[in-house]
Amino acid sequence: MMKNVMVGQSGGPTAAINSSLAGVYETAIERGAPKVYGMLNGIQGLLEERYIDLSEHMTSGLDIELMKRTPASFLGSCRFKLPALEGNEEVYEKIFATLDKLDIGTFIYIGGNDSMDTIDKLSKYAVSIDSPIRCIGCPKTVDNDLAHTDHTPGYGSAAKYIAISMKELIRDSFTIDFKNGMCTIVEIMGRDAGWLTAAAALSRDEDCDGPDLIYLPELPFDLEKFRDKVGELLALKTAVVVAVSEGIHTADGKYVCEMGEGVAFVDAFGHKQLSGTASYLAGYIAAEFGCKTRAIEFSTLQRAGSHIASLTDSMEAEEAGAAAVRAAEAGDTGLMVTFKRVSEEPYICVTDLEDVSKIANEERVVPREWINKEGDYVTEDFLDYARPLIQGQLQPIMVNGLPKHLHVPEGLRER
Amino acid sequence: MMKNVMVGQSGGPTAAINSSLAGVYETAIERGAPKVYGMLNGIQGLLEERYIDLSEHMTSGLDIELMKRTPASFLGSCRFKLPALEGNEEVYEKIFATLDKLDIGTFIYIGGNDSMDTIDKLSKYAVSIDSPIRCIGCPKTVDNDLAHTDHTPGYGSAAKYIAISMKELIRDSFTIDFKNGMCTIVEIMGRDAGWLTAAAALSRDEDCDGPDLIYLPELPFDLEKFRDKVGELLALKTAVVVAVSEGIHTADGKYVCEMGEGVAFVDAFGHKQLSGTASYLAGYIAAEFGCKTRAIEFSTLQRAGSHIASLTDSMEAEEAGAAAVRAAEAGDTGLMVTFKRVSEEPYICVTDLEDVSKIANEERVVPREWINKEGDYVTEDFLDYARPLIQGQLQPIMVNGLPKHLHVPEGLRER
Repeated sequence: MMKNVMVGQSGGPTAAINSSLAGVYETAIERGAPKVYGMLNGIQGLLEERYIDLSEHMTSGLDIELMKRTPASFLGSCRFKLPALEGNEEVYEKIFATLDKLDIGTFIYIGGNDSMDTIDKLSKYAVSIDSPIRCIGCPKTVDNDLAHTDHTPGYGSAAKYIAISMKELIRDSFTIDFKNGMCTIVEIMGRDAGWLTAAAALSRDEDCDGPDLIYLPELPFDLEKFRDKVGELLALKTAVVVAVSEGIHTADGKYVCEMGEGVAFVDAFGHKQLSGTASYLAGYIAAEFGCKTRAIEFSTLQRAGSHIASLTDSMEAEEAGAAAVRAAEAGDTGLMVTFKRVSEEPYICVTDLEDVSKIANEERVVPREWINKEGDYVTEDFLDYARPLIQGQLQPIMVNGLPKHLHVPEGLRER
Repeated sequence: MMKNVMVGQSGGPTAAINSSLAGVYETAIERGAPKVYGMLNGIQGLLEERYIDLSEHMTSGLDIELMKRTPASFLGSCRFKLPALEGNEEVYEKIFATLDKLDIGTFIYIGGNDSMDTIDKLSKYAVSIDSPIRCIGCPKTVDNDLAHTDHTPGYGSAAKYIAISMKELIRDSFTIDFKNGMCTIVEIMGRDAGWLTAAAALSRDEDCDGPDLIYLPELPFDLEKFRDKVGELLALKTAVVVAVSEGIHTADGKYVCEMGEGVAFVDAFGHKQLSGTASYLAGYIAAEFGCKTRAIEFSTLQRAGSHIASLTDSMEAEEAGAAAVRAAEAGDTGLMVTFKRVSEEPYICVTDLEDVSKIANEERVVPREWINKEGDYVTEDFLDYARPLIQGQLQPIMVNGLPKHLHVPEGLRER
């Protein structure tokens, strides 16, 4: 019989992060845990003793289905990095006093690199004080940049949202035949890793050209080469569509979004805006070619678009939560659940476990061989890798024309 | 037996405009029209004799289902205003020569105000030269601003996209508890009419707060009142979400997006950007309250989001196309198909016909009584009006994880 479980969500939200929460809850209850608590706003909330009893929110099978379909972190999140133990013992003592008070045997944190740093520190502290509490990481990030795992839950749904939205806006771009053509620049999340931007290529099929050019932050961005490519395309096509990562930068490390500094990207109140890559490039292309341009940012919708979530992603996210509980039950600690692709065709992934300290300090970017030689598209190998991750739809439960979600727990909205 | 039909699409695209095209095609064939031609890029393309035979693109029931699910104008579009007849007789002669050559009996134009101006001019010209060609308008616009009709096909799907996306991004906004709170400003299409922005309120339900404030272009925008409202809300809530029309302006007629002139909205190449309402207001609120802000634009996705199209909208759009064909067959000309709501509950709408010259020169905005007294939200009456229009989903036909569309016809992509 398991003791009680404490689970939290950390970092940026995804469309699948609550499937992992559902997986933790279901498996913990099934394994006999009397209570599953959820910390509000991650470890930061736990330090303020803000937590809820998840059984009050998942009272039925329907609630569990709604949980999987509710976008963004149900429990709220934080970007709080635990301080090093030395000199901050009281932070750790406070956390473990709360966990002991609630008779917790398993601590699960659903998140990315920074969250795995939290698991690393807490698990080592637990061992150092002979606490029986096991700390397990459950992977989550739309960025897909966690090391030692084939991919990360949350990525598949964001990739699907991006591919579908690209397909629709590319179609839209062929509507009006502008005199000097049109160039649309689409800015996609990913400061250091281009996985999400690469997913734009999934829209290419017999019924869609896909974006004409794709620029990832893994390679330096050359503005003049980009201009020449767009010029060549504008001579051939009525509408050109380019996908860029928000983090693209020149060879000397300057972000494209900083190029217009002092003109385009300081707002009327003196704030330097760090987004604006698409808007800078759209202005540049308009000036060079006198064509119509559009700058589009997918914004937070790309990570919150649960109405079109990938079923594969949701199922794997749920399984990751379940595997985290099973690992703790088996006596493991300081590990993160990972995915291993054991078959390409048919696609089969199984869960595994990896030392969390290895994951906390690494970042996985798109490998050079999955980007074409010119550095302006991705290869078939990337597409073969990513396509299985967007398969299937987690059909929303529609009520009165809109997808139904679980209520926001008290304590997240109110001041 | 009907003679051949020529159909075109004009103005901005919608997610339902191709349902009208399918409706025209199916009904014309059913009524015995030997050929249904589609002009490419509207009347502008017809002047260059660019048209296709639609039977080559809708060869099966599956093709027709795919047509309804294909976003944006299948035939391409234009923003070409026909010149007045006097002094431009050769333009009209050219159009009718092409129509006569193709043995056209019915001319159908799917579009908004400007397109109805085209129908008005062509139908009057036809009468003046004793041509038997009948010209009928089929309504289409995401803006919902056509007069003499309960609503316009295209609006329901855009409203549904907006309501769902608002719901998802509002949920996302409660993820991280920022020190001084967070304010998200969402910019929605609608320069003069606030119908689309008003649709953001449809997201409000027991599982979602909806946006906290909604500003339409129908009323003057008061920056200081807006600031005070946001300040009050930031004291109560961790995250505030505001929906604004791109066309909001102050009492003296200045667009909010022009307020930052010379600083925020002239890009690095000297172009004055006419979007940027959300980004201006986000910068303003950040400066006033020191809170985190986000500016989000739904961009062309709000009109192209066919993967979550409203079934009600699609069915009505198809019926509008069918009704246009029936009107021409009955001998009518110079009319546009309209919708009349004959029952509120259950919602029942029927088609009717209206003189196109009445429609071409009018614009229907959100009535004052559907906006609250404060001018910062819409009323229950608006919600009762709009809610039936977003009901049901036109389920996409998914292939390999993505919605399938019909191929782009040759002649729209190539230079």
